[in-house]
Amino acid sequence: MEFPSKLIENAVGELAKLPGIGRKTALRLALHLLKADTDTTSNLAEALAKMRFDIRYCQTCHNISDTEQCSICANKLRDHSTVCVVCDIRDVIAIENTGQYQGVYHVLGGVISPIEGIGPADLHIEPLLNRVQAEDSEVKEVILAISPTMEGDTTAFYLTRRLREFPEVHISSIARGIPVGGELEYADEITLGRSIVERQRQAR
Amino acid sequence: MEFPSKLIENAVGELAKLPGIGRKTALRLALHLLKADTDTTSNLAEALAKMRFDIRYCQTCHNISDTEQCSICANKLRDHSTVCVVCDIRDVIAIENTGQYQGVYHVLGGVISPIEGIGPADLHIEPLLNRVQAEDSEVKEVILAISPTMEGDTTAFYLTRRLREFPEVHISSIARGIPVGGELEYADEITLGRSIVERQRQAR
Ligand SMILES: [Zn+2]
Ligand SMILES: [Zn+2]
Repeated sequence: MEFPSKLIENAVGELAKLPGIGRKTALRLALHLLKADTDTTSNLAEALAKMRFDIRYCQTCHNISDTEQCSICANKLRDHSTVCVVCDIRDVIAIENTGQYQGVYHVLGGVISPIEGIGPADLHIEPLLNRVQAEDSEVKEVILAISPTMEGDTTAFYLTRRLREFPEVHISSIARGIPVGGELEYADEITLGRSIVERQRQAR
Repeated sequence: MEFPSKLIENAVGELAKLPGIGRKTALRLALHLLKADTDTTSNLAEALAKMRFDIRYCQTCHNISDTEQCSICANKLRDHSTVCVVCDIRDVIAIENTGQYQGVYHVLGGVISPIEGIGPADLHIEPLLNRVQAEDSEVKEVILAISPTMEGDTTAFYLTRRLREFPEVHISSIARGIPVGGELEYADEITLGRSIVERQRQAR
């Protein structure tokens, strides 16, 4: 694609570096910005730059935060004895949006991936262990909420092994099974198999 | 969706104002920028702001340009007697990419749309007529390359009526028909009908 202007060419080039945005979409976005008032572009550019340069990470859980401690860790009403370990900030947002979880989090910042050269030391694993073994630690349970991909399973396996050093801390993982409202016949075999083996006994 | 940071909330909000970008996609883009090095964000923010604030429009054809006259209008090797009228800069880019057109352009900047309150005066129609009737005008043919939507047809109809004031200028429109390689049975009825009525005689 050739462009009649270097300015638009650069903008399209930068937009097309974003995941899931091809050059055609990038051009559509650039032309939208050209048509909209200048505020639309300056607000967008400023919000992105401000986010990237001013963002902080919670010193306790590594969640994104505008302050030293995130609003979840700073909330005394939450259950600080239960720590939910997730890969990503997106997982925190997803779980928070369910409104079902009252504990706190620990964001790993990724998964162990030998192919991508990501080892345990590249993730916030040591800070999690420090959190668990700290003298004033309140942690009684660590929930592993990691996606069941090969790398996720490797990460969960590694974490389980390390956390076993602390027998007073329970390790659990989020329940796997047929989605609520999901029909059995459409579930994949592995999920269906696991949902039978790890069946949940009903209260009677 | 609630966010643990106002900074990310603002960035997601601004990204989600872009056409075709929902809040989930916006969050994915924001998290991508947070993970990537700071240059990725500053290059993007600067390219967008520079494009929006420094862009110029060709004084002749209203194409986007980094200079007073766009590179197409400034090119003496192009055929300045043929003017292709398009709605949008995107159409210029699409036609240029075919490599089949040697004439010049005129960008209207939209279509006549009573519903959206866009009348002929809101488009670059007078400059087109001025271009055609200028004393030193070289224009011999005006090609209407406007999408056959209801508004596009209204715009083409209006332009045809105005251009008839200049009988020495030929008016044409881009050929409609079955796409090259397209199968007859999959063509919509209107296209198929029009392609029969306006059939092209083959050279013999
Ligand atoms: Zn925190
Ligand atoms: Zn021009």
